[in-house]
Amino acid sequence: MNNGGKTRLELFISRVLGQCCGIDAAAAATEKLPGVVWEVGLGNGRTYDHLRARFAGRDIVVFDREVASHPDCIPPAAMLRLGDFRETVPAEAARSAGTVVMVHADVGSANAAASRALGRWLAPWFVQALAPGGYLVGDQPMDDAALEPIALADVGAGDLPPRAYFVYRKRG
Amino acid sequence: MNNGGKTRLELFISRVLGQCCGIDAAAAATEKLPGVVWEVGLGNGRTYDHLRARFAGRDIVVFDREVASHPDCIPPAAMLRLGDFRETVPAEAARSAGTVVMVHADVGSANAAASRALGRWLAPWFVQALAPGGYLVGDQPMDDAALEPIALADVGAGDLPPRAYFVYRKRG
Repeated sequence: MNNGGKTRLELFISRVLGQCCGIDAAAAATEKLPGVVWEVGLGNGRTYDHLRARFAGRDIVVFDREVASHPDCIPPAAMLRLGDFRETVPAEAARSAGTVVMVHADVGSANAAASRALGRWLAPWFVQALAPGGYLVGDQPMDDAALEPIALADVGAGDLPPRAYFVYRKRG
Repeated sequence: MNNGGKTRLELFISRVLGQCCGIDAAAAATEKLPGVVWEVGLGNGRTYDHLRARFAGRDIVVFDREVASHPDCIPPAAMLRLGDFRETVPAEAARSAGTVVMVHADVGSANAAASRALGRWLAPWFVQALAPGGYLVGDQPMDDAALEPIALADVGAGDLPPRAYFVYRKRG
């Protein structure tokens, strides 16, 4: 473990604070942009609940292997893309290229190397899906020339470790 | 839902911040008290990791139905009490009455009423286990004359909703 002396609880708190600030900043920055939102990784539905409050009135397309969320946070069936991200994300990116204002991608698992690899694999599909000026907020670093990194300090989370969560804006 | 206008993500952030502040305050307050720590609900082991940092050198007795924690956060087998809390907690309370300096009890589930009932049921066993001056930090309110409630403002978490997490000190 190399956690900079932080416990897993402290690292986790930084992660959820960065997530919340990143989503809120993306919602504010894309307010005037038409389009839908992607939630990649539903989990128990906490961030889905936050997204539907911050992006009220927009469709939220939700990707996960299965629906295992809190009963209050189950997306409409028509919005679900169930299965392996490596199949569902490319298929939906082709259908909705350039029409997504915000991708939230919380795709990591206990295996850090596999999580990084999945993030790298997903990045070009997210770029294809996003509208110019759209935001990508996620738990994995993304390296793509079309994505401008936004520092956590610029989304109101300057007191967090710089890599607690990741925010990008699609150039254009 | 009656969440005071907060999203589940915001409520969750308050909960983990309150948890972290409560544990840290309990560790500081019980520094001179001999005894062991109880982790009631291991889950993925985030708070267990925090407890073993803050209560270094103490035995941490861990209760859960099964071990499903992160590979870095698996307690020693001798410290595990596996099974239903309603069996394992009373049995251990009888064995170690008055010798526990801190109980951390994160026992809630998606069913709020069942979680409250479980908290009420566990309270007297925690009282039996705790040393005088020992702390109980948990996600459910406890109502027992032997437990003095400590406000979140008094553990450095005054900016959180008052019932985000619960901290008690055993009188005596």
